[in-house]
Amino acid sequence: MVLEAIYHRAKQNWSYAYDRATLHIRIRTKRDNVEQVHLFAGDKYIWEESSAYIPMIKFASDSLFDYWQAEIKPPFRRLRYGFRLQSGTERIWMTEVGFHQGEPEDSTGMFEFPFINPADVFTPPAWVKDAVFYQIFPERFANGDPANDPADVEPWGGDPTPTNYFGGDLQGVIDHLDHLTDLGINAVYFNPLFEAETNHKYDTTDYKKIDPHFGTNDTLKRLVEACHKRGIRVLLDAVFNHSGSSFAPFVDVVEKGAASVYADWFHIREFPVGLKDGIPTFDTFAFDTSMPKLNTENPGVQDYLLDVAEYWIKEVGIDGWRIDVANEVDHRFWRLLRDRVKALRPDAYLLGEIWHDSMPWLQGDQFDAVMNYPFTGAVLDFAAKGKLDAAGFANTVGAQLASYPWQINETTFNLLGSHDTPRLLTICGEDKRMMKLATALQFVFPGAPCIYYGDEVGMAGDGDPDCRRCMIWDTGEQDRELFAFFQRIIRLRLSHEALRSGSLRFLSAQPGGHQLVIERATARERLLILFNAASKNAVLSVPADTAQWNDLWSSRMLAAEDGLLHVELPAYGFAILQAAAPADGV
Amino acid sequence: MVLEAIYHRAKQNWSYAYDRATLHIRIRTKRDNVEQVHLFAGDKYIWEESSAYIPMIKFASDSLFDYWQAEIKPPFRRLRYGFRLQSGTERIWMTEVGFHQGEPEDSTGMFEFPFINPADVFTPPAWVKDAVFYQIFPERFANGDPANDPADVEPWGGDPTPTNYFGGDLQGVIDHLDHLTDLGINAVYFNPLFEAETNHKYDTTDYKKIDPHFGTNDTLKRLVEACHKRGIRVLLDAVFNHSGSSFAPFVDVVEKGAASVYADWFHIREFPVGLKDGIPTFDTFAFDTSMPKLNTENPGVQDYLLDVAEYWIKEVGIDGWRIDVANEVDHRFWRLLRDRVKALRPDAYLLGEIWHDSMPWLQGDQFDAVMNYPFTGAVLDFAAKGKLDAAGFANTVGAQLASYPWQINETTFNLLGSHDTPRLLTICGEDKRMMKLATALQFVFPGAPCIYYGDEVGMAGDGDPDCRRCMIWDTGEQDRELFAFFQRIIRLRLSHEALRSGSLRFLSAQPGGHQLVIERATARERLLILFNAASKNAVLSVPADTAQWNDLWSSRMLAAEDGLLHVELPAYGFAILQAAAPADGV
Repeated sequence: MVLEAIYHRAKQNWSYAYDRATLHIRIRTKRDNVEQVHLFAGDKYIWEESSAYIPMIKFASDSLFDYWQAEIKPPFRRLRYGFRLQSGTERIWMTEVGFHQGEPEDSTGMFEFPFINPADVFTPPAWVKDAVFYQIFPERFANGDPANDPADVEPWGGDPTPTNYFGGDLQGVIDHLDHLTDLGINAVYFNPLFEAETNHKYDTTDYKKIDPHFGTNDTLKRLVEACHKRGIRVLLDAVFNHSGSSFAPFVDVVEKGAASVYADWFHIREFPVGLKDGIPTFDTFAFDTSMPKLNTENPGVQDYLLDVAEYWIKEVGIDGWRIDVANEVDHRFWRLLRDRVKALRPDAYLLGEIWHDSMPWLQGDQFDAVMNYPFTGAVLDFAAKGKLDAAGFANTVGAQLASYPWQINETTFNLLGSHDTPRLLTICGEDKRMMKLATALQFVFPGAPCIYYGDEVGMAGDGDPDCRRCMIWDTGEQDRELFAFFQRIIRLRLSHEALRSGSLRFLSAQPGGHQLVIERATARERLLILFNAASKNAVLSVPADTAQWNDLWSSRMLAAEDGLLHVELPAYGFAILQAAAPADGV
Repeated sequence: MVLEAIYHRAKQNWSYAYDRATLHIRIRTKRDNVEQVHLFAGDKYIWEESSAYIPMIKFASDSLFDYWQAEIKPPFRRLRYGFRLQSGTERIWMTEVGFHQGEPEDSTGMFEFPFINPADVFTPPAWVKDAVFYQIFPERFANGDPANDPADVEPWGGDPTPTNYFGGDLQGVIDHLDHLTDLGINAVYFNPLFEAETNHKYDTTDYKKIDPHFGTNDTLKRLVEACHKRGIRVLLDAVFNHSGSSFAPFVDVVEKGAASVYADWFHIREFPVGLKDGIPTFDTFAFDTSMPKLNTENPGVQDYLLDVAEYWIKEVGIDGWRIDVANEVDHRFWRLLRDRVKALRPDAYLLGEIWHDSMPWLQGDQFDAVMNYPFTGAVLDFAAKGKLDAAGFANTVGAQLASYPWQINETTFNLLGSHDTPRLLTICGEDKRMMKLATALQFVFPGAPCIYYGDEVGMAGDGDPDCRRCMIWDTGEQDRELFAFFQRIIRLRLSHEALRSGSLRFLSAQPGGHQLVIERATARERLLILFNAASKNAVLSVPADTAQWNDLWSSRMLAAEDGLLHVELPAYGFAILQAAAPADGV
């Protein structure tokens, strides 16, 4: 056995409480190098009587490693444990102090999960598993009230630039709620709505005021009420890393310098506030002087922002916050935010914008989830860009799933594009078959899918600002067939619990291949999902212990022959198979 | 290169802020498998202009791995990074998304340290690096006031049992402060002092009252004042995981059952409170009904215990808390404790009792340090038990040092025995040469050393209760030569910054060997420390670029010959060498 490949360190994704009674314990081994792993576990205070070997299941793999997991419910909520690894006749025990050729004589030096304390159990809001999000960039969704248009508004549908306006507003969203209901989504994430100087509003002027070009606080209240009536939850964008340069405290600091009572609200490296050798004399988002970084360690800033976070929940009833540039703010502040928001609204969803590995923010004390851009990358590389073959996709996603506790995988935010990326259709070279394949992957995976406004009617767009084009409302210009596709895939996800909460296995993902078979299963339902990411049709053969299968997508019936199911898929096609009748003799 | 061995995951011990300006970035490779590693790092917002290759230094090794580190001060406090690994002509780049054969085309997919936020920088109290602790088990240290003796007190010096008393008290400690000053320690850790039913007092009855057999709250106040006058800091034992069964709220629950207002202060699985089939119907420490586990998620319990933590700092001026069974309490409660204690006393030392890997508690938000029992084990296995050869010791300690940020290594609590283990002398088979060797190792290592009362005068004792014998005060029975040894080793540590804050390198630690050479160095001083853990004398040859060396321990002068220093050490001997004159030509 390759000992250097074997990895376990207590907590994080390696040992965690899945719920108040259940621990998941995981270990990593070199791929295809270890045949069997057992968890060797018991209560440290009655080790002799309680310790036992529990088989572990290989639940994920990547190009280098296999990942094993055991589920265990320790009766007194505490667990001391080690591992026994077997390959051929070779057996090795692993504890916290290293490897052993035989069973350790006593239990000292073993790993510990000392106690399952409910306060530490990461419990994301239950509704998120069942959510389908829709992201709205408000300046470009719909103009419902021309009276509040900016002075220099341009005609709807023109080319977006970093600075121009088209008049989108909240009344426009209210006017088009039927579109959202018709589509079938049940949650909306809004890019920033608060008063700001730009069209994207990430440079807040007033955190407690809806931007006048979008409407009033009352318009948002009406909008949220209308959404809730339709069963649609609402997430707003919390831009707490930085304010805008016209935020009153920053204006005061610019005016008064070190004498300003707000001098410590920002990170001023040197007065006067401004540029020196082309570099801001204060910390900013990137090097953007219009976005001064807030000092979230200052109690005044904390009070202010936490009050803002509470305000919109109390006044307007929003269901959570998407948190901008979440990785650059101190962990302490996010803990304060979680405590305050969850005290007010225990099922609020706190979604961080973090593009990289987010384990340090997902320990139960800060966010419920992050925007899952690593998943975005894997899906696009497999389905659209041809950068990953089936094995590469399975390996990449396998590593991602293994890197987090399972409840995080279930409530992560799976997007295929946003206001910060080119649009899905454009990445797919405008090939809608490819776009549908990518979307099907998104909708059958653990994690809440999010649709970027307009994708569902065939909107294209390159990177910012082109991905922020005006929503197409002319049904003649909308791709209604694509819209129907989105309707169906949403309904399918919402009507099959296995797609939202089931286990996930890769049944086939060959190196060099472009066909993928995954299984999602609960105790009640088992689905086989087949993908063909190739430009020509393919026949996939899948071992099947059930004779009759129903393709939920094409509605065709399929019969297994000698325990094998042969499924023909067109180029970029997919099938979602449900067992229709038991196999012979079962 | 063995890719499966290469490990880095952002944060924890792999990337952390050492101070508000400095990041340490580490990576692990298979031992002796990689020749050179470079950190490839820059500011993500100006990647092209800022990115550069920085050589990494191999700072530790264990039996399987080498650990590399680079130190970097990113000008805008944020860092995007990857690694370039080289072995022969083979070069590989590693980023968060995996391995690459060439330099990644762009910086997406790299690792991130998004921002050094001061609030998240782990800053243990500065004084701990310079502390030498002395642990006192109060019932057995000295009887200064026979008037407060328990009714069934036994004559001083009798055999300890789990339940007997000898009359030790706080006045006894006050009476013997000269002993501590004479020894040279500068901090005392007291086992529990609060009112309780047992001799060890880990079953608290009243958290705000000194046990009447130990004195009064005023006695402690006088004791702490006297300690402070002598430059001795005081740590008390916080037993917050559980109370005693005579703690008033628990008594109330036993009496009134579910109707008690304190019913939620504990974890009652089933009323009535008691035993059922031999198992307590409530959570306890281990299965001990005299130690009911406190529900530290209950706001009333939190208020009560946090008030206790503050009370003894405010009323008596203690310098920190040693926290009992720290691993079984929820992380949230420890965060609350840290916030409250540090607000009152920013340099208070919070020391958790955790015997295993403690990374989850040492992220800057909970404890400053833990009782470093893994270090205890390594030293005893090498110096006393013969279970580890020199290479084994270096590997074990190398893995320990690599598993934490360096500031944690510098302020960890290095003990060789306690009230919970056999005494050092007994583990050494009463061989004082061995005991001194182990103690020398303890005193030249990073981390604050702690002496268990009586070890310095030659007290022996097996596991609990035998390790809790009465302190020997008859100087005729004390080993005064051993006491002088402790005086010298303490003075040596306190007079050489390199021993407290210097870097650490293993210069020689051969498989099968029992001789060890380590280096500890600051910019101003370099010490070579040689150990012979064998039962006969040995000559150690050490490469030395300085001609004349002074053994700070034996006071002999040593001359290097042809760049080699030959040092003869007796059985279980050691030397602490300081360069006395530069080598020829330097």
